[in-house]
Amino acid sequence: MYRTFRAGQIRATDIDERVRLAGWVARRRDHGGVEFIDLRDASGVVQVVFREGEAAEAAHELRNEFCVQISGVVSRRPGGNENPDLPTGDVEIVADGLTVLSESAPLPLPVDDNVDVGEDVRLRHRYLDLRRTGPARALRLRSEANRIARQLLHDEDFVEIETPTLTRSTPEGARDFLVPVRLQPGTWYALPQSPQLFKQLLMVSGFERYYQIARCYRDEDFRADRQPEFTQLDIEASFVTESDVMAIGERIVTALWRELADHEITGPIDRITWHDAMNRYGSDKPDLRFGTELVDLSDYLAGTAFRVFAQALESGGYVGAVVMPGGASQTRKQLDGWQDWAKARGAKGLAYVLFDEATGEPRGPVAKNLSAEHLAGLADAVGAKPGDAVFFAAGADRIAAQELLGAARLEIGRRCGLIDESAWAFCWVVDAPMFGRTDDGWTSLHHPFTAPNADWADRFGDDPEAALAYAYDIVCNGNEIGGGSIRIHDAAMQRRVFDVLGIDDAEAEDKFGFLLEAFQYGPPPHGGIAFGWDRICALLTGADSIREVIAFPKSRGGHDPLTGAPTPITPQQRKEAGVDAVVAPPTA
Amino acid sequence: MYRTFRAGQIRATDIDERVRLAGWVARRRDHGGVEFIDLRDASGVVQVVFREGEAAEAAHELRNEFCVQISGVVSRRPGGNENPDLPTGDVEIVADGLTVLSESAPLPLPVDDNVDVGEDVRLRHRYLDLRRTGPARALRLRSEANRIARQLLHDEDFVEIETPTLTRSTPEGARDFLVPVRLQPGTWYALPQSPQLFKQLLMVSGFERYYQIARCYRDEDFRADRQPEFTQLDIEASFVTESDVMAIGERIVTALWRELADHEITGPIDRITWHDAMNRYGSDKPDLRFGTELVDLSDYLAGTAFRVFAQALESGGYVGAVVMPGGASQTRKQLDGWQDWAKARGAKGLAYVLFDEATGEPRGPVAKNLSAEHLAGLADAVGAKPGDAVFFAAGADRIAAQELLGAARLEIGRRCGLIDESAWAFCWVVDAPMFGRTDDGWTSLHHPFTAPNADWADRFGDDPEAALAYAYDIVCNGNEIGGGSIRIHDAAMQRRVFDVLGIDDAEAEDKFGFLLEAFQYGPPPHGGIAFGWDRICALLTGADSIREVIAFPKSRGGHDPLTGAPTPITPQQRKEAGVDAVVAPPTA
Repeated sequence: MYRTFRAGQIRATDIDERVRLAGWVARRRDHGGVEFIDLRDASGVVQVVFREGEAAEAAHELRNEFCVQISGVVSRRPGGNENPDLPTGDVEIVADGLTVLSESAPLPLPVDDNVDVGEDVRLRHRYLDLRRTGPARALRLRSEANRIARQLLHDEDFVEIETPTLTRSTPEGARDFLVPVRLQPGTWYALPQSPQLFKQLLMVSGFERYYQIARCYRDEDFRADRQPEFTQLDIEASFVTESDVMAIGERIVTALWRELADHEITGPIDRITWHDAMNRYGSDKPDLRFGTELVDLSDYLAGTAFRVFAQALESGGYVGAVVMPGGASQTRKQLDGWQDWAKARGAKGLAYVLFDEATGEPRGPVAKNLSAEHLAGLADAVGAKPGDAVFFAAGADRIAAQELLGAARLEIGRRCGLIDESAWAFCWVVDAPMFGRTDDGWTSLHHPFTAPNADWADRFGDDPEAALAYAYDIVCNGNEIGGGSIRIHDAAMQRRVFDVLGIDDAEAEDKFGFLLEAFQYGPPPHGGIAFGWDRICALLTGADSIREVIAFPKSRGGHDPLTGAPTPITPQQRKEAGVDAVVAPPTA
Repeated sequence: MYRTFRAGQIRATDIDERVRLAGWVARRRDHGGVEFIDLRDASGVVQVVFREGEAAEAAHELRNEFCVQISGVVSRRPGGNENPDLPTGDVEIVADGLTVLSESAPLPLPVDDNVDVGEDVRLRHRYLDLRRTGPARALRLRSEANRIARQLLHDEDFVEIETPTLTRSTPEGARDFLVPVRLQPGTWYALPQSPQLFKQLLMVSGFERYYQIARCYRDEDFRADRQPEFTQLDIEASFVTESDVMAIGERIVTALWRELADHEITGPIDRITWHDAMNRYGSDKPDLRFGTELVDLSDYLAGTAFRVFAQALESGGYVGAVVMPGGASQTRKQLDGWQDWAKARGAKGLAYVLFDEATGEPRGPVAKNLSAEHLAGLADAVGAKPGDAVFFAAGADRIAAQELLGAARLEIGRRCGLIDESAWAFCWVVDAPMFGRTDDGWTSLHHPFTAPNADWADRFGDDPEAALAYAYDIVCNGNEIGGGSIRIHDAAMQRRVFDVLGIDDAEAEDKFGFLLEAFQYGPPPHGGIAFGWDRICALLTGADSIREVIAFPKSRGGHDPLTGAPTPITPQQRKEAGVDAVVAPPTA
């Protein structure tokens, strides 16, 4: 047996006990020939003293992160040497035996929570990074999150079912990762972007309640904090309404935050419609930790001569604003900075009006272009006080203009310290549109299997832009942490949705034929939700990045700094895998 | 709300209750205008009666597997109509409302456990197959198996950690599935054959106790009952001995069989050395549900003039035998069949001697070649009785000859009905060899990180063939259901193993550099085990094939009969994925 006790669990009640421990040298110091080491294992740290003899001499040779086994007797620390910050702070091990299990080379990365190290080095030596308390705690929390969610779902009769990860490519949405199939050269598997179609098949098969903590894959261009492989808690149920699914989701989130963030979500989580979220916060995942709502000025500014606003309004578009408290005191450079900020988001700039701190008078370039009447009532219309700034966005595309203001709102919240970083603000965003406009028609805002709500079931085709879906996202502090929908289970309705999307029968058959075929055999009404597990765990951990809750994350471009993946393959691998074989896809 | 009760949970105590139910029409019958349906949901079946009115007329139009919602009142079945085989057999729902939620086309596959359907049709329409009680129960059991194992591991302080599935290719052992990386054309990820290296890195990182129910991938040629993706329960721990890991494994197996197979594993599971298993059963995964052990005749037949045996013995090889009780009564055709059976296994044939039922006299072609003395003592030497047959295998390659006899033993067990199909026979196979001989040297029998046992730690290089590892497999009814080892954590020892394997420093660095680097920083002693989760669940289910415990299995050649995967990809996908880019691998 390597050890009889865990280091971090030794207490004063164990005094005089002979123990054997194993772990790492967290620190060694020498006080006049007496060697002290802090011995760390997964349970914590205990002080070990080598007073004399061979063991003390050997201990003198120890270095940080050597892996050692020690034997000795638990003793009370000499008076005045207790460490109240340490659970084991009353005791020390008076050691008489030492075995070095393995040595450590000089460390590329100090195993010390108090030292700030660049992420590149941390990921390159992730095995050392994870010896630190914070990073290790993040992964332990994730393990607990899994347990809490599974326990709840088990108690509610959900069945955990694994779905395939070598599956069929359905080229649409994000790109699939592809896998050549040696036994059928020229054909490829795809890694699943989600278990969506399989979980719907499981509903057709009568399981009624399914879940899975599922690995998913999306071959996307690099965006901040995305990983090519990610994890979702995937849930689907039959004979459920939107409210049923949302209630399940809410119980999961409530349990997680109660047990892991010591936060009680009281009462049902607020629901806000998608259109309200856009109108008020310029986002379909509003951060409700602060107010600062958008103001729609389209009516107020009707008839304005200012060209930018007038053009937007004439084309049936939108002019809106958001207030930056105290923003009038910004320097010229800061105000120019907002222009660059807006341009980086694809906007032409960010019009603004400043209300003089002393007089309340509006000034700035836009102020010169507005009528006296519009200027006079502007502060009231937007809710600005003297000293505030107002930013405007205008455009024929209402959503784009609101999104710009929504981004400005978040930036204002950060810069002005409006966000309570200790707060948890949840909401459901409901009644999302079924369709979004594209250059040549319509696309699904969620996916083509999302059901219209009862109001729109019979007439979504008449006004696709206005049609609403039984779709719901759950948002925490401005992060979409989960989303789902009630699915279509009626073949005729599904065909009508494909019609709107411009998917003809042949294409539908080619892409989703197996699901449509399954739907011929008494599919139940069903719906579900998927939680972004990496994001949820990151939030619970208080981490900015999902990389903190992934054991071995990829860095930018999908590179793994630890293993060096991806790598070139050998010509033999290439040949064997049949990579070069080309088989024409069947014509749709 | 779609339903107020689950169909299978209604009891006589619910009589007079008004209920709403939803589910599938399992059966409909018409008795003089009164319509009866068996309504099935995930909880079971209840009888529904439509006596009159519109609902009865509508019910007449129902067909099997329509998905329906009904409302009605729970009533006692008329006297004599109770069905004691059904938990709901005392009651029926007198229905007054019926909504068809979806219709069903004529079924390609009857949803009936009593009808035997070919696997092709079952997999093609797996969503219907899974509506059947047996197939659905298999997946529910698997969900429970997950829960039981996780609960136990959680209680023992194991942390569940996900490891990457887009990882680095290490070309050796089975082939890797490969994934082209669009963002770095010419480079590829590999799908992991197991989390082996990552779990060892987690030990270096100090987690001490890790587990994961992990998806793994092996691009193997088709063998019976293999899947390109499969699942293992993967466990690793630090500061453990072989016995510690085996004890953890034993607790898991005991819990699973207790809770899911109603079988109590009493006392510690027997251990048998790898060499004993080969000598006695001709297999490293012996089926201990029956005896019929192999007999080593190498000494007994020393000096024989029979060329086949003499050559084997002269080359330092092996002659052994296994008895087939009652085998002397086999027909000529049956005996010829054994020759074909042996040839299909790559042997030249299967020598045999038959002991006459009446006289006990040995006969058959081999008998003619043995000396009178050898013949006289043969029955005693092999433990044969009059009427038995004895099969022989001989060869310079002891293992190959024993494996042939081991396969014959299993065949004998089956043909002679020696196997108690209701029995559970577990054993640990321990003390496996470290190395196996190849054409040009040595290969690892487990993997190159497996530690030699204490006896061999200092001298495995002196006699690789004889060196034994701290490696252990757990076997159930002749199936290897798990296996693992204590790993090397000493860099110098690892280099000595690479020496034996003919892996030079450059190759080691190229393939395992990141692990070897990690081992520089105080790696703890560690070891683990991985359970073949598909096989374990299949055994617990009583299924012959792991396909029964996989929701959407692949058929032969990795084809998915349901989705049609794998498929050709479009030229655009090919171009985008960078499939055709070639980057030379770094020279080792």
